[in-house]
Amino acid sequence: MKITSVPSETDISQSHDRIRNLIHKTPVMHSTSLDELAGCEIYFKCENFQKIGAFKARGGLNAALSLSPEELRKGLCTHSSGNHAQAIALAAKLLKTKAYIVMPSNAPEIKKKGVLALGGQVIECEPTLEAREKGVEEVIRQYGATFIHPFDNYDVIAGQATASKELFEEIPGIDSLFAPVGGGGLLSGTALSARYFSPGTAVIAGEPEGAADAVLSHASGKVEKAPYIKTIADGLLTSLSEKTLSIIRDGVREVIVVSDEEIIQAMKLVYERLKVVIEPSAAVPLAALLKQKEKFAGKRVGIIFSGGNTDLGKLPF
Amino acid sequence: MKITSVPSETDISQSHDRIRNLIHKTPVMHSTSLDELAGCEIYFKCENFQKIGAFKARGGLNAALSLSPEELRKGLCTHSSGNHAQAIALAAKLLKTKAYIVMPSNAPEIKKKGVLALGGQVIECEPTLEAREKGVEEVIRQYGATFIHPFDNYDVIAGQATASKELFEEIPGIDSLFAPVGGGGLLSGTALSARYFSPGTAVIAGEPEGAADAVLSHASGKVEKAPYIKTIADGLLTSLSEKTLSIIRDGVREVIVVSDEEIIQAMKLVYERLKVVIEPSAAVPLAALLKQKEKFAGKRVGIIFSGGNTDLGKLPF
Repeated sequence: MKITSVPSETDISQSHDRIRNLIHKTPVMHSTSLDELAGCEIYFKCENFQKIGAFKARGGLNAALSLSPEELRKGLCTHSSGNHAQAIALAAKLLKTKAYIVMPSNAPEIKKKGVLALGGQVIECEPTLEAREKGVEEVIRQYGATFIHPFDNYDVIAGQATASKELFEEIPGIDSLFAPVGGGGLLSGTALSARYFSPGTAVIAGEPEGAADAVLSHASGKVEKAPYIKTIADGLLTSLSEKTLSIIRDGVREVIVVSDEEIIQAMKLVYERLKVVIEPSAAVPLAALLKQKEKFAGKRVGIIFSGGNTDLGKLPF
Repeated sequence: MKITSVPSETDISQSHDRIRNLIHKTPVMHSTSLDELAGCEIYFKCENFQKIGAFKARGGLNAALSLSPEELRKGLCTHSSGNHAQAIALAAKLLKTKAYIVMPSNAPEIKKKGVLALGGQVIECEPTLEAREKGVEEVIRQYGATFIHPFDNYDVIAGQATASKELFEEIPGIDSLFAPVGGGGLLSGTALSARYFSPGTAVIAGEPEGAADAVLSHASGKVEKAPYIKTIADGLLTSLSEKTLSIIRDGVREVIVVSDEEIIQAMKLVYERLKVVIEPSAAVPLAALLKQKEKFAGKRVGIIFSGGNTDLGKLPF
């Protein structure tokens, strides 16, 4: 059964029960030296250790599990060159159906290989949004596959919400929870989880300067475009959708914008102090916290590490 | 009370009780994709997440805790430019005494900073073994501090043994356990732990080609020198000592020698698949397993990640 309006507490709990045995309950990490540096107590929810190396496994699986057996039989499809592509390929593999992933011909070879390794089918297209959408239409026409949007989908949002639900269950009393924002699937899910499972928690977003649409949309209440797009945080390039914005506007206290330099510094700190591999997008919330650390002094803070898929040959430090 | 002969089961259990609240019980990680690649079931004991980023915290603390209050009051000393230096500085900090660390003047700035950040005192010397030993003698003469050798010390060995003890307690039935070998503190401790706490486990060492003394010493029964010293695994340059060799000769089934290229490949796999940061020395056991994976097909294998302190600006991939 698909979720057709803003997910309720029951929707998120049921989503969690539905995907629980197919995903990892990722660990929460902690570092005394980072606490000292930030002046607060930080708990890192490590979705970089999630299946496919990113939280997207949660939403993709949850959306796939909402389909009827007939729909599922015909397969899943999406267009993406990022973690959502692998999430859909993983969901199809686990649920024994097909995944059709429309990818621009200039997508990195490693992303294609990731999808292929999970048994997904890669359909190449020209590197334009129009070509990607046309590719998906063609797949739907030909196979009857169901399109799963990376974030403008309530089942996806409810799936992403389970990451912070787990964090709240493990670490009670979090004052502020930071998540990165791109299209807003993770952030809107986090806002809902806080509302239902930890009402005392303020949800804060970290957003790159070079993809700063959410800060504008959060202020205006309309889906805005970023003034310019250029950031190392390649998972956060997308703008919000109507569905994610309406939840974020209600449930997110603040969007803190950070520069690429601040993102790189935060990323390096995580590698050095926590000894874990994260992708640039996952460093954005820590960069945001460090930028305004006076505000959070002495607090108990959560941070969601969204993923760990990065080209290790091109680390920015 | 210092341990004055090969540590017994009781010595190691008491050492564990002694340090337990001062160290991290590090997590054990697991990756389906690495299992598939290796053809066996691998459990990674993550001492890269240990305090100071390496297992050395265990041995250093255990040795410091074996001292009398009078000895402890006068301080600890060692010569090292590696993880043991930080381990001794940490032990001194936790036990509220002084650490005097003799370091060659050409040691990387970051290593000095690590010791200083823990409140240790750095004493610079010429970059020769003679100068280092003379520096330590001078510290002993001047302050009466106790020298703690990085591996030729039974309390240090008993401390390092607690890493594999924890692994055996968490994951029963390990067929083969791989550890890296430099001076042999971790490897000899691992061999003792297996003997006492998991007698069915074969202990295997991984050693770099460019510091291949242990393979020779294990065969001949005498402390041998490596034919040449040149490897990326900068934590494993030292030769065995009499104390470590005698334990290793009895308790280690085999030393598998790997090239730097194999080490780098294994290290990259760990970053990519497990999303954790390890230092090159910590990748040596996985390189050894992958090199001879046919021998371990279908087995339940443990691997100790010895540490995660590496210059991120100089990753070899």
